[in-house]
Amino acid sequence: MNKTKFSARWPWLVALSTVFAAGPAAAVEGMWTPEQLVDIERDLKDAGLRIKADKLTDLTAFPMGAVISLGGCTASFVSPDGLVVTNHHCARGSVQYNSTEENNYLVDGFVAGNRPAELPAAPGTRVYVTTRVEDVSGKVESALDDDMSPRERYQAIEDTRKALIAECEANEGFRCQVASFYGGASYKLIERLEIRDVRIVYAPGDSIGKYGGDIDNWLWPRHTGDFAFYRAYVGPDGMPADFAEDNVPFRPQHFLKVSRAGLGDGDFVMAAGYPGTTRRYARLSEVENTFGWTYPTFKALMADWIATIEAAAPAGSDARIKYESLLAGLNNYMKNIGGQLEGAERVGLAERRAAREKALSDWVAADASRAGFAATFDELDVLVDEMNADSRQDFWYDRVTRPALLGAAQQLYRLAKENEKPDAEREPGYQERDMTFFTQRMQVIDRRYDATVDKAEWLLFLDGYRAQPDEQRVAAFDAALGLDGIDSEEALATRLDGFYEGTELDNVEARLAWMERGVADFEASEDPFIQLAVALYDHEIADEEQSKTFSGRMTQVRPGYMDAITAYAASKGQAVYPDANSTLRVTYGSVFGGSPKDGLIYEPFTRLEGIPEKDTGREPFNSPQKQLELIAAKDYGSYELDEIGSVPVNFLSDLDSTGGNSGSATLDADGNLIGLLFDGTIESVNSDWDFDPKTTRTIHVDTRYMLWVMEKIDGAGHIIDEMTLTTTR
Amino acid sequence: MNKTKFSARWPWLVALSTVFAAGPAAAVEGMWTPEQLVDIERDLKDAGLRIKADKLTDLTAFPMGAVISLGGCTASFVSPDGLVVTNHHCARGSVQYNSTEENNYLVDGFVAGNRPAELPAAPGTRVYVTTRVEDVSGKVESALDDDMSPRERYQAIEDTRKALIAECEANEGFRCQVASFYGGASYKLIERLEIRDVRIVYAPGDSIGKYGGDIDNWLWPRHTGDFAFYRAYVGPDGMPADFAEDNVPFRPQHFLKVSRAGLGDGDFVMAAGYPGTTRRYARLSEVENTFGWTYPTFKALMADWIATIEAAAPAGSDARIKYESLLAGLNNYMKNIGGQLEGAERVGLAERRAAREKALSDWVAADASRAGFAATFDELDVLVDEMNADSRQDFWYDRVTRPALLGAAQQLYRLAKENEKPDAEREPGYQERDMTFFTQRMQVIDRRYDATVDKAEWLLFLDGYRAQPDEQRVAAFDAALGLDGIDSEEALATRLDGFYEGTELDNVEARLAWMERGVADFEASEDPFIQLAVALYDHEIADEEQSKTFSGRMTQVRPGYMDAITAYAASKGQAVYPDANSTLRVTYGSVFGGSPKDGLIYEPFTRLEGIPEKDTGREPFNSPQKQLELIAAKDYGSYELDEIGSVPVNFLSDLDSTGGNSGSATLDADGNLIGLLFDGTIESVNSDWDFDPKTTRTIHVDTRYMLWVMEKIDGAGHIIDEMTLTTTR
Repeated sequence: MNKTKFSARWPWLVALSTVFAAGPAAAVEGMWTPEQLVDIERDLKDAGLRIKADKLTDLTAFPMGAVISLGGCTASFVSPDGLVVTNHHCARGSVQYNSTEENNYLVDGFVAGNRPAELPAAPGTRVYVTTRVEDVSGKVESALDDDMSPRERYQAIEDTRKALIAECEANEGFRCQVASFYGGASYKLIERLEIRDVRIVYAPGDSIGKYGGDIDNWLWPRHTGDFAFYRAYVGPDGMPADFAEDNVPFRPQHFLKVSRAGLGDGDFVMAAGYPGTTRRYARLSEVENTFGWTYPTFKALMADWIATIEAAAPAGSDARIKYESLLAGLNNYMKNIGGQLEGAERVGLAERRAAREKALSDWVAADASRAGFAATFDELDVLVDEMNADSRQDFWYDRVTRPALLGAAQQLYRLAKENEKPDAEREPGYQERDMTFFTQRMQVIDRRYDATVDKAEWLLFLDGYRAQPDEQRVAAFDAALGLDGIDSEEALATRLDGFYEGTELDNVEARLAWMERGVADFEASEDPFIQLAVALYDHEIADEEQSKTFSGRMTQVRPGYMDAITAYAASKGQAVYPDANSTLRVTYGSVFGGSPKDGLIYEPFTRLEGIPEKDTGREPFNSPQKQLELIAAKDYGSYELDEIGSVPVNFLSDLDSTGGNSGSATLDADGNLIGLLFDGTIESVNSDWDFDPKTTRTIHVDTRYMLWVMEKIDGAGHIIDEMTLTTTR
Repeated sequence: MNKTKFSARWPWLVALSTVFAAGPAAAVEGMWTPEQLVDIERDLKDAGLRIKADKLTDLTAFPMGAVISLGGCTASFVSPDGLVVTNHHCARGSVQYNSTEENNYLVDGFVAGNRPAELPAAPGTRVYVTTRVEDVSGKVESALDDDMSPRERYQAIEDTRKALIAECEANEGFRCQVASFYGGASYKLIERLEIRDVRIVYAPGDSIGKYGGDIDNWLWPRHTGDFAFYRAYVGPDGMPADFAEDNVPFRPQHFLKVSRAGLGDGDFVMAAGYPGTTRRYARLSEVENTFGWTYPTFKALMADWIATIEAAAPAGSDARIKYESLLAGLNNYMKNIGGQLEGAERVGLAERRAAREKALSDWVAADASRAGFAATFDELDVLVDEMNADSRQDFWYDRVTRPALLGAAQQLYRLAKENEKPDAEREPGYQERDMTFFTQRMQVIDRRYDATVDKAEWLLFLDGYRAQPDEQRVAAFDAALGLDGIDSEEALATRLDGFYEGTELDNVEARLAWMERGVADFEASEDPFIQLAVALYDHEIADEEQSKTFSGRMTQVRPGYMDAITAYAASKGQAVYPDANSTLRVTYGSVFGGSPKDGLIYEPFTRLEGIPEKDTGREPFNSPQKQLELIAAKDYGSYELDEIGSVPVNFLSDLDSTGGNSGSATLDADGNLIGLLFDGTIESVNSDWDFDPKTTRTIHVDTRYMLWVMEKIDGAGHIIDEMTLTTTR
């Protein structure tokens, strides 16, 4: 253990307190693409990285080759037999899928005593192992010429992407994507092995894995055992296969060692993962529209939306069960938007963005050779203003077309339309390669749909929509629904009743059957949701065309904008990382609590003792009795961190992360797993737009807590044995 | 400055973190009566007190003689010319009273440039200066004999108290009380000069004095400038007088020096003030009833109650203005009860009380000479069970008799009844000495009453009441309101309409006129609220009689219970302090942040820089521009605390305080004023029942911030000049 470093930390914290008036601590901004790490190698070394930066750039070598995607979450291989560790909240759907009234694994946790006992994950669960990354910017570029219209430009890019993907996926068992970076300045083809037999190996019960639940969500101090284990299986030939008895564990080329030494305060950490979306380079007017209109409007609507669902689906009802997940999502998102709005105010987001744009413009104006950039700024701002206006128009239309069966009808009708074309020409999402997921989407509707609730939501949205001025409404929608002739809430409700009474789309067989039908069948249908979908089709296609043209225009402008930002940064000796786009990124920094608010110091670690302190015996603070007894007995096993006098449960870092990073391997300076990233503090959410080094904190579950729970509570010693532990620090 | 001590503190904080698993830090429990301080002198000295404990026991000598009561808040003299410092929230009513649309002192703050500019405080504002304290236990005791019935016993005590008070108040200008300690084991007569010409001298605007408002209420970190200044005036003869031009500043015998050196982390502090009520010696069954039934029931009702008022008095309406204060109080109390319920769970209140009672019983059982105590416990528990049952019965009846004009009618009718007796025999509250406050109560109703809101509240309460079983309802009430014949919400609403349409009590002149009328006038009245008051009278009197009998029984038992507790404590060498009863108490401890929750450290001080950090420009985070500029310029004047690199705004201590302590002088080891106590953290509220040393924290405004605001922002240098500043530490 690096005692010296840890001990040196506390005085520094004191210094921080004293010095705070002078400015925030320097947390490390940046979601770097792996190949950028060589450019910032000096910073990485200064921060404490002990392995060479170029070891981190190869996504198919150690350690990055061990970092995998679950699609939406990140995970890592931690054994030669395809054992995968990720967050509990990333694997919880699979636990739920396998739970019954008798065997409620959500409550009891699940530990497979041996391989045959491992249970299939929820349908659609995938493990994606990156096998190849290729810069295809040149290929995309060569498909374009300057005479193209924006719409043609969009199509040329899309066609190139589709062709590259098709070529890549000709190799069976692989799933490919072409990701765009820096607003379209570069493109990468990413080939990933798509493992589709994934099984749940071990997950603690909710009372550990989801401890604190929605109440503690986004908060520090935290005490959540947010970890679980999957295993990837393949056919006997080593290639991806559907679930089968004779499938065998996948043998990854690389897996992470797990540190039981863990880290101390101030130690170097990095996380590798798949952050979803950031808007760090958004123009001021987009920031203003989002924080001045979209977020406040959405936040107000969400409060009503939640109340509407809760009233239509009373607690304890079957309907409520179907909507729990949406409710949790809405509450979560409302908290997130609230945090973003507060954060924007706190950091002065608009003022800072304005100052940043002015500095950039001043730099451009300072040298005639940069004049081209200035024109780009103007063109971009015109586009962003259009985008803002569109976003306001679309907001309510998107809401009133949200009913579940209308969505199904629209997708099914679109499928019939697309099926009239050759596969290669179909829209992404409607190609043969998409049909597995399409079918699953049609199937799962039943588990999240209740007519009464759906109608109550629709009425709420229609009330908001009808209050908008004509130019923000869609004539085709008004006409199809006959809104002009409806003069009371009752009449509207009666009109909607007709939809729910007259549709057959509430039946899964019917929905699947419609996947096989032709356009004429839809046009002849008397199903009210299908009729509405048909009536809206032309508007939707026109809107989509407009949006494709807009995308084409954007690809002409945004890369130039990013070039300006990159050139400006380079003039100051700085590197620029691209906005998050669900591709693999590395962020580095240190274990760090600090003082995000005057008068409060966040300790970098929480302790086992914090669990009984919070415990009420009721969800979500219902720690297992055995755990409470072990803590009371100070039975720390070999997992104690001397500096805190207990087993560390969760820890904070100053890493730069966002949604999608969940489950990310948190690595020490040697690339050993020392925790899993699972959340950020609420003060951090605003960093999606503007990284705030003072308040941004990422929350991790410590491997020492994971191992302690596995050894002491869940009897998962055989899973510990399967991993390679390391005790150096 | 005590640098060594401060510097020594940080390592100790580290030690605390490490050691935490071993148990909480030892905050100092105890709201000591001043004369007890000699008994705990060694503890006081060990804690750091530099003056002799016996100097603190004389309430009419320095420094206690400078500590005064405003009735509900505490305050202190800080100049020889009667300058009084207290919390902003204690004086805010007077600022509001003097505010107009043109001169809105709530917004702008108020600074009297000279004495003539000082404005009269709100009607009813009083300064109470303690002039004499006498133990009258013997006098009360001698009025009792063992043959008395409980009802006679109650009456004998009340008669003695009234006689003692009357004798004391024969001295004009004095207000006297007989306070009971240890559940009636001892009584003290407290004579206080009642100064009734009180003027507002200086109060910062809400944007400093109420910074953070309800959002920050009960929370740390805090940045509230919760201070204001009054001046006490008396007639030219030095005796209390009504407001008059030729009144002169009161010359107090003692006043506090104000420290501009302030304190550092870990330094000794004590606070002298008038804490209202604690229940530290309540029996287990009272704890269980309160936390198992009363609080949860009340908490649920309050949520509906708040929603009802908000719906009936929409934001921005005139009615809303009248109910702002009630709404704030309800929100405040709901937060408080929530904190108490959480705290009870956290500390295991019921289990701890059970263990404490068992230890006491075991100690009693261990020695035959203590057998008398055992009988007392049993008798007390019978009484507490009765009290619990009564509290449930009374809960809803108290709600449904809450309408403002019904309350007025009941008080007026009672006054007519009491007026039939000689003054000395009248109930407390209805004697001549009470008529000033009685009249004021009748007058202020208009400012807090709106018929629509009042009726909506009444309907809500009636819904709850009607859902109770018959035995928990009051027949006289049901009959008078004709509840049996009412079968729908509409019918009930119509019935209530009759009250609001038919009453004249919504007119202040009418209410005052009724103060002069006789019983027969009431009985002949057709005013529906008066009719209801008359109809409920017999029940109310019967209930009151029952309650007096109950009190009489309690006075026979509770002192014995407290004797047992005191004897048990003495056997362990410990002192016992009485429950808070709005008499002067002293609590001591140190400036202390600590770690009330695992993973968080509370810094003991907040800094000026925390203000812009919170500022949104909107109430309650709308710091004056000038303040933000001074902070940005680091213009700390001479008020910087080196250890935190800024001016300290608020600080935390481990003192033992509760409601009523607001405005309490916070004193250093020499008795100098170093701050004003103004709040506790939400985790502390449960300490009213069971002191929790780990989480209990009291919040103070630092004199250095007060002086900085006065000097730098509000131009109140002449008020600083009037005070005696001290710079030693």
